[in-house]
Amino acid sequence: MISVVIVGTGNVAQNLFFALEKASNVVIKQIVGRNENHFSFTNGKVSTTTDYKQTVTADIYILAISDDSISIVAQKLKHIKGIVVHTSGATSITALNEYDQPGIFYPLQTFTKGKIISFAEIPICIEAKNTDELKLLRQLGNTLSNTVIVMDSEQRKKIHIAAVFVNNFTNYMYTIGKEICDENNLDFKLLHPLIKETAAKLDDLTPLEAQTGPAKRGDQNTLHNHLKLIKNNHQRELYTLLSNAIKEKHGKEL
Amino acid sequence: MISVVIVGTGNVAQNLFFALEKASNVVIKQIVGRNENHFSFTNGKVSTTTDYKQTVTADIYILAISDDSISIVAQKLKHIKGIVVHTSGATSITALNEYDQPGIFYPLQTFTKGKIISFAEIPICIEAKNTDELKLLRQLGNTLSNTVIVMDSEQRKKIHIAAVFVNNFTNYMYTIGKEICDENNLDFKLLHPLIKETAAKLDDLTPLEAQTGPAKRGDQNTLHNHLKLIKNNHQRELYTLLSNAIKEKHGKEL
Repeated sequence: MISVVIVGTGNVAQNLFFALEKASNVVIKQIVGRNENHFSFTNGKVSTTTDYKQTVTADIYILAISDDSISIVAQKLKHIKGIVVHTSGATSITALNEYDQPGIFYPLQTFTKGKIISFAEIPICIEAKNTDELKLLRQLGNTLSNTVIVMDSEQRKKIHIAAVFVNNFTNYMYTIGKEICDENNLDFKLLHPLIKETAAKLDDLTPLEAQTGPAKRGDQNTLHNHLKLIKNNHQRELYTLLSNAIKEKHGKEL
Repeated sequence: MISVVIVGTGNVAQNLFFALEKASNVVIKQIVGRNENHFSFTNGKVSTTTDYKQTVTADIYILAISDDSISIVAQKLKHIKGIVVHTSGATSITALNEYDQPGIFYPLQTFTKGKIISFAEIPICIEAKNTDELKLLRQLGNTLSNTVIVMDSEQRKKIHIAAVFVNNFTNYMYTIGKEICDENNLDFKLLHPLIKETAAKLDDLTPLEAQTGPAKRGDQNTLHNHLKLIKNNHQRELYTLLSNAIKEKHGKEL
């Protein structure tokens, strides 16, 4: 049985709570948070505290908190003994230098307020200072997910940048798509099947193979007509930059 | 029973063939194409011809061909009588001015070579010159899809531009994501669950609500660290432009 304390009450903390609560061979001993009112998601099933000094003993402490809080909370929880991990993609393991047994437990996923998702398919990237600690983190990861990967802080930062492109920037493309729909009284929902198929294609093809559209085809006529129709300067700037990038990539590589 | 002739043998034509073949109250009378060798997908189930003059009579002719071929093929098929539609998002109905009964039958989806997908969820955008023709196109659309929308050529061009953002440009974000993974010996497949969840979020949230990440949070520290880590100039330029756009959108609107 692995005992765990979760520090934090946000989206990641809540998702970890619901997943670990169902996991076999894991007991959540406590949730630690700043605000009493943010514990309601636990439904009274687990002991909670807002007093960092009251943190109980556990095998693994998971700091599921925002990047800039990690060092601050680490200062407040100096006394805890055990493996202390954070869940941030962008933050080095050195942010936990306070501790003898620092580590990383980074679920590579986007978590949404109020939405609890299955961990089974979520890759969990782990890091620790020695093999015993790594083994315990791997055990914990395996209770949740089919994919547990050992990754050092440099690699994790790189995959986090890749995640910014495929998640944050992709979502921004959706934002522009909705903007264009709204401007023209078109229902953005009409694009949902296309959006899902765009993602699903990656099961069979690399993104390079999956690329379609006027820029990929070098269809100057359509590119020109589109630019005439786009009235918003920012949209036009993006359209031009990304179309040129696609043309260049596929012109060079095809 | 609606009789149909499909002109073309590419991804759209093949997907329409497999969907219409299974549809009730539809008979595919013929496939017309330039190259005998490209008919193999029909598996001999339907009459085929490479001789445009041999095109048989039907209620609806579907030109499922590339944008720049539409006018050329329309010239070669001047003699056909019936509703003649094309399947292009970017091309006006005026490209079919040759015909008495021109129309549009535009499935809003990305089609991949060798991959046959279900039409049930694909919106089909239709356009015609009068209500009888529109009624027949709607009937044909309804045999395939739950969503058949009447849309004029101007609106269709606009939704096609939105589709370029959410499909072509999103896929380019995936391309950069894979590039970063490859450069750092990371498996791009680790990002697949994130990519799928990014799309799935739209079931519950608008893209504006779904936006996360360092730019949305205004987390200058992470933005700065990412830019230090990105060695590729093009990647850095995109990262900066898109992060600034997200900052601006959310700084203004939150």
